[in-house]
Amino acid sequence: MKTKRIILCGLGNVGKTFLKLVAERAEDVRQKYGLSIEISCVVDLGGAAIAEKGVLPMTDFMAFVKNGGQPERFPGYGQKGLSIVEAIRKYDFDILIETTPTNLRNGEPAYSAVTVALEKGMDIVSADKGPFVLYYDKLKKMADVSRSRIFISAATGAALPTMDIGRFSTAGSTITSIEGILNGTTNFILTKMNLEKSSYADALKEAQIMGIAETEPSLDVEGYDSRNKIVLIANTLFDAKIGINDVPVKGITEITYEDIKKAIKEEKVLKLVATAEIRKREVSLEVSPKRLDKTHPLASINFSEKGITYTTDTMGQVTVLGGKSSPLGAAAALLKDVIHTHLLP
Amino acid sequence: MKTKRIILCGLGNVGKTFLKLVAERAEDVRQKYGLSIEISCVVDLGGAAIAEKGVLPMTDFMAFVKNGGQPERFPGYGQKGLSIVEAIRKYDFDILIETTPTNLRNGEPAYSAVTVALEKGMDIVSADKGPFVLYYDKLKKMADVSRSRIFISAATGAALPTMDIGRFSTAGSTITSIEGILNGTTNFILTKMNLEKSSYADALKEAQIMGIAETEPSLDVEGYDSRNKIVLIANTLFDAKIGINDVPVKGITEITYEDIKKAIKEEKVLKLVATAEIRKREVSLEVSPKRLDKTHPLASINFSEKGITYTTDTMGQVTVLGGKSSPLGAAAALLKDVIHTHLLP
Repeated sequence: MKTKRIILCGLGNVGKTFLKLVAERAEDVRQKYGLSIEISCVVDLGGAAIAEKGVLPMTDFMAFVKNGGQPERFPGYGQKGLSIVEAIRKYDFDILIETTPTNLRNGEPAYSAVTVALEKGMDIVSADKGPFVLYYDKLKKMADVSRSRIFISAATGAALPTMDIGRFSTAGSTITSIEGILNGTTNFILTKMNLEKSSYADALKEAQIMGIAETEPSLDVEGYDSRNKIVLIANTLFDAKIGINDVPVKGITEITYEDIKKAIKEEKVLKLVATAEIRKREVSLEVSPKRLDKTHPLASINFSEKGITYTTDTMGQVTVLGGKSSPLGAAAALLKDVIHTHLLP
Repeated sequence: MKTKRIILCGLGNVGKTFLKLVAERAEDVRQKYGLSIEISCVVDLGGAAIAEKGVLPMTDFMAFVKNGGQPERFPGYGQKGLSIVEAIRKYDFDILIETTPTNLRNGEPAYSAVTVALEKGMDIVSADKGPFVLYYDKLKKMADVSRSRIFISAATGAALPTMDIGRFSTAGSTITSIEGILNGTTNFILTKMNLEKSSYADALKEAQIMGIAETEPSLDVEGYDSRNKIVLIANTLFDAKIGINDVPVKGITEITYEDIKKAIKEEKVLKLVATAEIRKREVSLEVSPKRLDKTHPLASINFSEKGITYTTDTMGQVTVLGGKSSPLGAAAALLKDVIHTHLLP
């Protein structure tokens, strides 16, 4: 039995769901993979709950959190003001799980936590995009030095295994291009416009009412979320060293029903597509609305579903689609990556 | 640098394409994965070409084979009459690559080769279904004893990563059902009937002219190929111990254009679907034509494309589709599995 001692950073929806999922699945994972997942420390804004040796009493901790308790006040384990960086410096863990909200200005507080964890030779499993969108090249070099690994399934489509196909299922094949519908909100809006002749404004409003779009939807509808994901995927798969400002991005805010109708007339479907073209090891990325042939494997991905197509030289096109886009889907992707740290030594 | 010494059994289309692919990609694989793939022995009906130490001179060997040469006559390396079982017994290898034609009567000659290889602690990478469809349970037990592994991507959809999703991308999630369009020939015929109003006989004839269907098409059209694949997938993922005779199978030979029309009228699409339902660790399999909702992720898989949908408890539905169905696709799947023997120690 191998043990992985875990420090979880961030106790929002995804962090809480991950703890619940690990509690439910721990025994299955022990039996199936010979892996014991030990949650030893949980850090949020005000401090940490930490088991200096062994694990946090998870049932008690989760009941405490459910009643509004903060980690730093958890009796017997709470340490007020203990930051994530201090916790990683002071104690030993195998994996940092990062679930704080994405910060694209400077990646903090995750960026500092990730660098300290990498210096200590820990593996990183992250649902947070920030540090990796901004500084992947630097972090990868640090990881190579300390023989750490960076797993970002949960940040690149959650339960949709975007990275697994590129990293694992196409091993030995050369990827020549990637096309992805990587954002559920924009795909929902375009599907509504396409199938129900909605205007952009009406479709957006409906998405907001259903909780699919944010009140401030620009991250999604301007194409930035798709851009962030394709940057992560391309940098991870190809060591491409692409910054977010290197990517031409066009969102869907100017799409009218006329555009949709025009596409339909040409037997096409309008989708917001993030692409990576790889030519002679040069990688170029783009996000923009594209008219896909009806037979394109991404053309029939509707509503808030996502999908990604890898075009390869020896395997043809491989497309994966679906995967829950919810805190549970993200938590499941984190758990999968934790298992992968064990399966891929 | 890790070395994998390989014995290849079978020098048909897939075997030859695999050798060519390894020759082309060997340097890439060394650089990217730190893995040196050494083809040390190739066995076909009349005997073997074997490098007792080191590797076969691949450029010369492939030129020799291209000119109609048989392995056992390859100058300096040929051994007339050396069988696969004798070669494995007498010399040391890390991986047996099995590409002989599937034999569903007794799995031979692959079955004997696989058992001897497993006894010696070798990993198996197979494009051949026979031994695993017939005797998976027994072979898995042998593999567990000798700490060998069995990789059958190439036998379960070739370049379509059917097994990777179930084994790797859904790790930590519980699979509750699997649905697959696992046979390209039958999907081609049904698509022709659906889109072009062909009769079954006309669609079959066209598939035969295009080389998609065999002259003797029963393995495909009676549903047996789909059955064999779902048996392999279910036994591998769930240790299900299901024999081919445990699976109710209905093919597409009795489908008429009337049936197709009826499905269209109900806004459905008729597909040959292989299913696995998992309830309380009980697995039941079935192959039969099914009317899928138009929104089903498999509904828009057309012509000779294949696809598989995993329904899980925490990740929702994950569907993968595409992947070349050709000797190159199968060879690429073999190469991928060889790399996986190295990535998954």
